[in-house]
Amino acid sequence: MELVSKETFLNNWQGHRNLTRRVIDSFPEKDLFEFSIGGMRTFAQLADELISIATPGLKEIISLKAEPLAEGKHEYKTKAELLARWDEDTKEINRLWNEIPDARFNEKHKLFGQYEDTVINSLQYFVDNEIHHRGQGYVYLRALGIQPPFFWER
Amino acid sequence: MELVSKETFLNNWQGHRNLTRRVIDSFPEKDLFEFSIGGMRTFAQLADELISIATPGLKEIISLKAEPLAEGKHEYKTKAELLARWDEDTKEINRLWNEIPDARFNEKHKLFGQYEDTVINSLQYFVDNEIHHRGQGYVYLRALGIQPPFFWER
Repeated sequence: MELVSKETFLNNWQGHRNLTRRVIDSFPEKDLFEFSIGGMRTFAQLADELISIATPGLKEIISLKAEPLAEGKHEYKTKAELLARWDEDTKEINRLWNEIPDARFNEKHKLFGQYEDTVINSLQYFVDNEIHHRGQGYVYLRALGIQPPFFWER
Repeated sequence: MELVSKETFLNNWQGHRNLTRRVIDSFPEKDLFEFSIGGMRTFAQLADELISIATPGLKEIISLKAEPLAEGKHEYKTKAELLARWDEDTKEINRLWNEIPDARFNEKHKLFGQYEDTVINSLQYFVDNEIHHRGQGYVYLRALGIQPPFFWER
């Protein structure tokens, strides 16, 4: 039985990425880079973490050449820059996805030289981590008096 | 190729449920039922939503008898009551999981008489929705000056 196909997994991820994009876009420019609650990171910083994981993670899963996580090394100065990178990655993820050899998904790999698990579990972690941080962005938006996009609209 | 086995899917869900349990438990009694940000629901109310979805959803997936979502119909007055129900459900989910016929996962079903999708996509939604709301609970905890459990510890 095929519980989740490669295509379904990718569609679910890209659906979440589409929603995250709309959450980024819902922030006023200034608040995206400055607002946070309880000493947490701004939503721009959280989005930077997601960007640092997605395509670099896929590239490493394909090449098996470990690179440390590059979080915080990018410099996004505007929402437009951040969204431009997000959109580039959306296409890049679709391209890279098809390059992952089927056998790779169930192999163990130490991602970013640090996190050892099966490739599919690491990919699931990418998605789960994005949902987690985006949920935090929802609270930021509500605290700013802004209605976030509906969670079920992907 | 089996991307995600039934067992892996369940383990991932139960790992998330274990983390959510620790998030519930991290709240001071009063804040669990009273604290929120930006007009959102309290974490007790969010946990009630998760409880209303998990075992009722599984039961419906097995019986195919649709019932409307019973969110807000439970009355949890203490953290201990909420955690007791959570722990009961953990066992119940393991039991029910094995009763889902393999063929059912890829069938379409209108869950709670309302949400039409394949069963596996609905189950994925259960997990994603839990991660989403738990991420919100992390912000509540941070706003209260409480260190939440590590996201990667399941």
